[in-house]
Formats: sequence, structure tokens, C-alpha cells
Amino acid sequence: MSQLQKQLEFIIEIDRLKSVLRRTGLMDGSRRENSAEHSWHLSMMALVLHGHANDEVDLLRVMKMLLVHDLVEIDADDTFCYDEAGMATKDEKEAQAAERLFGMVPGEQCKQLMALWHEFEARTTPESKFANALDRLQPAIANYLNDGGTWREYGITLDQVMERLGPIADGSEALWEYAKGLIDAGVRRGDIRASEKGLDGADGPG
Amino acid sequence: MSQLQKQLEFIIEIDRLKSVLRRTGLMDGSRRENSAEHSWHLSMMALVLHGHANDEVDLLRVMKMLLVHDLVEIDADDTFCYDEAGMATKDEKEAQAAERLFGMVPGEQCKQLMALWHEFEARTTPESKFANALDRLQPAIANYLNDGGTWREYGITLDQVMERLGPIADGSEALWEYAKGLIDAGVRRGDIRASEKGLDGADGPG
Repeated sequence: MSQLQKQLEFIIEIDRLKSVLRRTGLMDGSRRENSAEHSWHLSMMALVLHGHANDEVDLLRVMKMLLVHDLVEIDADDTFCYDEAGMATKDEKEAQAAERLFGMVPGEQCKQLMALWHEFEARTTPESKFANALDRLQPAIANYLNDGGTWREYGITLDQVMERLGPIADGSEALWEYAKGLIDAGVRRGDIRASEKGLDGADGPG
Repeated sequence: MSQLQKQLEFIIEIDRLKSVLRRTGLMDGSRRENSAEHSWHLSMMALVLHGHANDEVDLLRVMKMLLVHDLVEIDADDTFCYDEAGMATKDEKEAQAAERLFGMVPGEQCKQLMALWHEFEARTTPESKFANALDRLQPAIANYLNDGGTWREYGITLDQVMERLGPIADGSEALWEYAKGLIDAGVRRGDIRASEKGLDGADGPG
């Protein structure tokens, strides 16, 4: 198969990301979001918001990472970020998916896509910290606009939300300030539960 | 409103692109594609295929154009490329949409988004020629995989397909060679009609 044919097979294969559903809804609450349109939205956020990154970032690399970061879900499916059991087996499943998917394109390109995915996951470079900040902020905005969204639906606690959204600060202090406002509103409206053993119900200590 | 607040309002507004449906289906035929996930797919194509552009291209600008190029559809809706009446009023509706949407972000950024959209539409730079090539190729692949897709559904003729897909050659001769293969197959399988006044039915001259 020629280099171009391999690349086009890959392009056809990744169309399947449009059928991977996330738990989060669209911002108008009309349906659940899929991972392809989510990746587009994050890339647009990078374009518009990169001036708020803590460090100067290479916008092209941020965008590449965001376009690529969820591709492994084609095989591994989306793991809900508050599903602890799912998160434990996520890494292995995703590593296998990366091998298969990125292995579809010619050598140098395979390495490049793999490197982008690893960089995103590791959260050590300014670019990946900022990309991750966007990936965590976007569903929080959707939850805020959807009367609590997945926070309310799955009874998520403030501790869980802080652990999930805290890394926004590593990528952008300005966006973290904004995120804290969303979290405060979520707590005030009862969208986010106050503690692990809820004050308000069945799991509570009584 | 602060600069950041304006930008976030824009980010929330453009979520609506996920609800703009195109005529083209997903590549597995399961449903129609929306313009947000379509824009993601084109950006991924740019990342993987830019080495096949006729001229060396600035990949970052290609990606920005592709992320932004359909945003005007939030107000103007998607115009089917083979709908001649729709295409005649498309420009004015889209220009108004661009004013409103890009006007939501601060001055310099508004100008930048507007310039990207105009550049894409004008098809004069190497970057916009290549971006347009991808935008035209992607639905042709989907049609090929979907037993003719919109070609068959709307009785599209070979002349119409050649006019629509011909500009792929301006962006990439290599992709145009590939597209010609799809068109040949479409004609052979009867997905694409042979001429305006069809040989095979009601509109024919008899």
C-alpha cells in the first residue's frame, strides 16, 4: 500500500470517533456530546484562549494534541472521568488502541502521533498543561449550563470536582479563576455534593 | 465585559455548530454528519495529509481555517453544495453570520477570524487551496463508502461532481488523482448520473 493509501485508510478509520459518546451533554442539553466534535471545540478554545496560558505555548502543537488526544477512544471507548474502576484499566486499553490506530500511518507519522498523545497524557510541557486545562474546563462549562449535568446526574462531590479541575491552574491561572466560579455556583445550586458521604441522602452517615 | 468573558461567550455560542447537520452521512452511514465533527475531521486530514499539498503550506494556518470555515453555518445553516438556489443567497447570509459571530470576540481576534474565513472562501493562497481540497474530498469519500450517498440520493450528475471536486487539483494533485478514482467508481456503479438530463429516467429527453 502506498503512503497516501495508508494515510487515507487512517482518515476513514478515525471517522468512528464521531460515534464515541461522552457523558457530557452539548451546552444546550439537547444530547450527549461525541468525542470528535468535542475535539473540534477544544481546538477552537486553543485558538481563541491561548493568550491566557501561563506560559507562552506553541499553538500548533497544542492544536495537534487536542485533535489527536481522544482518538484512542475508538477502541477503548470514553472512560467517564469520575468512574474510578474504569480509570484503573483505562491506561492499558488506550495504549493498545494507540498502537493499532497510530500504527496505520507510515513510520515517522506514527511516531509523531504517538508522541503527541503521550505528551498530552503526561501533562509536563506548557503545551500539554494548557491542552489539558481546556479538556477539563469545557465539560465544566457544559455542566454549569445544563443544571449540573454529569455532576448532578452521578452525584459527584466537591472533592472529586476539585481533583478533576484543579490541573486547570497548571495550564492557565486565568481559566482556573473562571472555573472556580463555575464550581462555586455548582455547590451553591446543589449540583455538586458537599462531601464523599453526602449530607443529603442515602450514603450519608445519618 | 472582560476580554476573557467575551471569548468564553463566543466559545459557548459556537457549541451550536454541533447541531448544524450536513447532507453527507458519516462514513459508516449511521447518521448525517454535523459541521463541528466535520471540521475536526478536516483538521485531522490536514495534519496527516499536508505533505501532499502542491505547495508547501503553513499547517497552523490551514488548521485554523478548517476549524473556523463552517462557523457561519450557525446562523446561515449548511447550504448543500449542489443546491443552486441555496448557493445564490449563501454569500450574503454567511457574511452577516460572520459579522455577528466573529464580532463577539475582541477586536484583533475578530479581525483574525474574519481574515481566516475570507481566505478560505477566496481560494487564492496555497493554504486555502489545500484546505478547500480537503473540504471537497472528505464528503466524496463518505459518498463512495455509502453506496453513492448524496450523489445517488439527489441524482447528482458527473458535470456537477466535476465542478465541485475539480478544485481539489488546485490544492493537491495527489489527492485529485485519488478523487478521480472515487468519481470513476461512482459513475461505474451508477451512483453519479451521466449527464444533466439523465439517460435513465424521468428528466431524460426520451
